[in-house]
Parts: sequence; C-alpha cells; structure tokens
Amino acid sequence: MLVDYGSRDKLFLDAVLEVREGLLQVAGVSKEKGYECVLMQGSGTAAVEAMLGTAVPKDGKVLLVINGAYGHRQTAICKYAGIPYETLVFEDSEPITVDRVRQTLRASRCSHVSLVHHETTAGVINPLEELVKMMKAEFPDLKVLVDSMSGFGAYELDMTWGIDFAVSSANKCIEGVPGFAYVLCATDALKQTQGNARSLTMDIFDQWANMESTGQFRYTPPTHAILAFKQALVEFHAEGGMDARKARYRATGPKPAREMQKMGFEFYVPEACRSYCICTFKTPEHPKFHFQTFYNLLAEQGFVIYPGKLSKGNSFRIGIIGRLFPKDCELLCLSVRKACEALQVPLPLR
Amino acid sequence: MLVDYGSRDKLFLDAVLEVREGLLQVAGVSKEKGYECVLMQGSGTAAVEAMLGTAVPKDGKVLLVINGAYGHRQTAICKYAGIPYETLVFEDSEPITVDRVRQTLRASRCSHVSLVHHETTAGVINPLEELVKMMKAEFPDLKVLVDSMSGFGAYELDMTWGIDFAVSSANKCIEGVPGFAYVLCATDALKQTQGNARSLTMDIFDQWANMESTGQFRYTPPTHAILAFKQALVEFHAEGGMDARKARYRATGPKPAREMQKMGFEFYVPEACRSYCICTFKTPEHPKFHFQTFYNLLAEQGFVIYPGKLSKGNSFRIGIIGRLFPKDCELLCLSVRKACEALQVPLPLR
Repeated sequence: MLVDYGSRDKLFLDAVLEVREGLLQVAGVSKEKGYECVLMQGSGTAAVEAMLGTAVPKDGKVLLVINGAYGHRQTAICKYAGIPYETLVFEDSEPITVDRVRQTLRASRCSHVSLVHHETTAGVINPLEELVKMMKAEFPDLKVLVDSMSGFGAYELDMTWGIDFAVSSANKCIEGVPGFAYVLCATDALKQTQGNARSLTMDIFDQWANMESTGQFRYTPPTHAILAFKQALVEFHAEGGMDARKARYRATGPKPAREMQKMGFEFYVPEACRSYCICTFKTPEHPKFHFQTFYNLLAEQGFVIYPGKLSKGNSFRIGIIGRLFPKDCELLCLSVRKACEALQVPLPLR
Repeated sequence: MLVDYGSRDKLFLDAVLEVREGLLQVAGVSKEKGYECVLMQGSGTAAVEAMLGTAVPKDGKVLLVINGAYGHRQTAICKYAGIPYETLVFEDSEPITVDRVRQTLRASRCSHVSLVHHETTAGVINPLEELVKMMKAEFPDLKVLVDSMSGFGAYELDMTWGIDFAVSSANKCIEGVPGFAYVLCATDALKQTQGNARSLTMDIFDQWANMESTGQFRYTPPTHAILAFKQALVEFHAEGGMDARKARYRATGPKPAREMQKMGFEFYVPEACRSYCICTFKTPEHPKFHFQTFYNLLAEQGFVIYPGKLSKGNSFRIGIIGRLFPKDCELLCLSVRKACEALQVPLPLR
C-alpha cells in the first residue's frame, strides 16, 4: 500500500487482472466457465446500487426479499433511481424461507430477484444455495442478484448454483482494506444489461467492457486498496482457501458469543440461522448498563464493537470479520467482564 | 495508511472532521462563513455525477460549458441520469470565454451552470474567477458548479467568488492517494438540494446531513485513503499552503515543457491558456517515433506519461501533479532524449 502505481501502467493492470481472476476462483468459477468479475470504485452499497441499476431494465421488475436493514436499503436504492420493484419482508431475526419466496414469485411477475446472503443487521445467514436452486429450477428466466457483502469468503457462495450477479466488498471476509467492491457476474446475464444503467459511474456493463478492452478502470481506481487486496488474496490462499477461512471464522466467532451467553447476555437471533461472523445481543436492562460507556471501555482495550441496527428494541453487535483468532476472542471476553465491573453491572446478568 | 481505524470510531471521525475543515480552509472559507465540505467515496467522476445529480432539481436545467473530454463526460452523466441540460462547446485547445458564456446564459433559461476549472484533456486553464464573478453579477439566481479535479490546490479557487459547488479528488494537487473525492458547497445552496438526488449513494445532501448528525459516512469509507489525506493536508500547510504549492508547480511543470520544445516537440495549446500541470504535445510525425515504445522506454526509467485524449490528431501528455520538483523534470528530459535516441529519432525534430 505504500507503492504508488500509475492507474494505466502495466504493473497496476496486471494487479487488476490478478484480483479479478482470483475472485472468480474463490467463487468456484472462471472466465472460461462463463463468469466475469467487475471491480467498482467506492463503498459496497454503491456496488449494490450499481448491480440493481445495471441488471434491472426499465421494463423489468425486481423482487426485493428483505430480512434486515441491508434489504430495506435496496428499497431506498430502487426508489431513488426509479427501478421498478416489489418487496417481500421477513423479521430481522429470521431467515428468508424457500416457501414464501416461491409463493411470492408465483404471484408476482418479477424478472429479477435480489436478496442479502448474510444479513448483518441482526446476524442472520440465509439459505442461499437452497433459495437460488429453487428459483432457477422453478423460474428459469428469473435473474438472481445477491448482496454477499459480509458473506463472501466466510460462507459458501458458488455462482453455478444459478446466481447471475453477486456483490461483495474489499474490506470484508477476504480481509482487504476498504475502497472498492466487486461484482461477480454470469457473462450471459451481464451481456444482456447494456443500456440499462441509470448512472454513468455505476454502469457495470460499461465498466466491464472497458476493463476487457483496455484492462483499465474507466475512472481513477483506488490503486493502493487494490494492491492491498491482491496481497489479501495471496494470504487467503496461503491460509488454505475458502475451507480454511470458513473453519477459522467458525472456530472464532461463536466463542465470545457462547462466553457472553454465560455472562447472561441474551442472543437476539435463534441458533439455527445465527451467523458465526456477527452476533447481536439485546442490551441488558440493568440500570447501570450504559451502552456508550461500555463501548468506550472496550475500545480503550482495543475492541471496537457495533451499535445495534434493529428496528425494535435496543441491541449491540459483535463482529468477527478480519484477521482474528480464538485467542483474540478470549481477550475480548475478559474486556467485557472488566467493562461490566467498571460499570458496576454484576455478572451473570439476570 | 498501515493503521486500521474503525469507520465509526472516534479516532477516525476526528480525522474526517479535520479533513473536511482543512479543505474548506484551502478554499479560503469555513463552516462559520457559510460553507460545507462533503466527502464522497469513489472516483472524482463519481463525485461530479453526485454534484450534478444532487444540485440540479427535476425542473431545473444545467448549462454544461465544455472545452474538453471532462466537460463532454458531464453530458454523458446527464444523459444517463435524466438531468435536463444544454451545452456550449469550445475547442479543446482554447479556454472558455466570458463573452460566449454570457450570451448563452442570456438566451437560455438555465438554473445551473457547470464547467471544468482545469481541463486536462489538452491542458487548458479556464479563467474561473472572471467567469464566476460575471455569472453571479449578471445572473444572481444561477447556481455555479465547478469540476476542479486537477485544479484545486495548484490553481486558485475561492468559493466566495460565487461558486456554489466545487469538486476535487484526493489524489490530485493536495497529493493524497486515490479512493475518495470531496465537494465544497455553499451551505445555502446545499440546503436547497434535499430530495433532488437520482441516486442513494450519490446524494450529497444526505451524505452531508449524516456527517453533520453522526460525524460518519453513510456507507463504508476508505479509511486508509482518508488518513493518508489528513497527512497530505499537514504537508500542504508545512510547504506553505496554496501559495507555496502553486509556486512549486509553476516552477516545475513548464520546465520540461520548454526543454521539449527545444527538442522540437510541438505544443498543442497556446501559451496564454496553457496549464503548468499538464502539457499536451503533438505526436511527432517522424516515421520511427512509435508512441507505445516511447512510453515504455520512459516508464522503464521511472516516468509514466499519458496518452493523448484529443478528438483530433495524435498527441501525448505530460502531467506534473504530485510530489515533483524541478530536479525530477531535468531527469525526465534526459529520459526523453535517451528514448528518442533508442528510437533512432534525431533531435531536434523537424
């Protein structure tokens, strides 16, 4: 990240190609098998907007299947950009179910469907493989869009299940730094999107066409973040690829969750659909438990947690994404105990 | 850039605030004087799109005053997003003139006008101060939008001339790294833009409202690029601020340009409006002058130049933006001589 590459220089263009091919490999596919990877400057949300705005034509309609704030955000995206949509809304503590999606798709005339793979609002993992396979088996013309922001790399995502477009971001489970996002695309589906986009800079088709013809981004890319990501992919494979990354996350995330349960913190999401990367706890009702002080006490010890994002009830979240190991979680649990002590909140909570 | 800050953590939020305030200071204004700075993730072009899409209401119309590819790009942005526009087009080797803009504004019923400060297509500096002062004196309700991507920091830009919105990018004359751009706004004008935006992620009003209420970006920011930019601002002021930065660029850029003229390379832009940051040369007609080989020979010696971007005739560009000094340009000129020798192109050209 301390090297300044020219954005049109061969050294940088080679890095871009390596990143694009490396991401397809993580998704179990390749260019030869009919898939493409397009890098997009900016935040993950910008890439989700780019996906919706590029994939759904003016005379199409997308079914937004929602079980959390990131799903609802897709509604806001569609409203702003005038993308025709319908919604199917689940509680944020429950997963999307195959049956309700099937029923809704039968009744609607949607050309596209969009859903979040790993909903970090509450920390729910959706049954992506089942959902996509049902969709493609029963609605062969339907195009399937997936926001796998915090899922890709830590949870299985295989484009050959029938996914047409999937978005993730550099700074999530592949463990790069923030600055860009990427869209995995079925080439056939991508080629049908020419002329759809509502925005020049968020036109995935045009970005792809330019990358194919010149190897370059259309507009200035975050060169340093891309070089960091190239190294993140090297480390991903050195660790043992998707299986090893999943195994580490699965060994790490639930550890503090279980410990905190012993301290009396209450889970918000039932175990069956609970993510091993993000865990939501209800804010304790003890009168001396003040969240911001709790947050600051943990931050002082090096642990940055997340405020809750639920529509109902107070909550907070612990996210275990990044270069973290079980040992880090033991230290986190110690810090939680210390913070409660400082707050004069006796453990276990009751 | 090697420190990983949490995007909602106080350390990072302090850095964001420092960058926003520091940029207003460079533009000769402050929050108290009625100006705001909004940071936007992504490329500079994305921020130009955000500016046009947020500033111009559905029932407004923007006059795009164009003298190069970056002006024409604004036409593409407006077409994609359905922003009502008119154009006034100059040659890319000439500056925008006050008279023709005045005439066009009198004849049109445009609510907004948008122009590029420093057109790097050919390397033309437009008379921004004169243009803006005329516009505001003669058309008091007109809102003025400026793309000052490669100008801001190296050429004077003072919001109090009457500029309502001005965009630049982290990786240009303030000498940060790419990953975000910023929009300087007159607060009154910004407050009138609520509800205008055609895109969720490119809604400058919403980004600003969120930064004001929480100190945070709405969506994941490029934390490392922002920390690097904070340091770039420190170095900008340590060098002596705008005056010193301008003086260094003015002492550096024209040096290789004059030397290359002595070698027989021909300028594309007349001296009166020629930029000191970017210089376009006509590609020599000598049969052995092959541009890509010339480019590669220079790159091997550490000098990355730019291909031309003109609509007519072959050309190439030399850009002097960044931590460069007259000494670097002497080395560049030596490398140009060596490259011509290797190509068997005798100097001076004729």
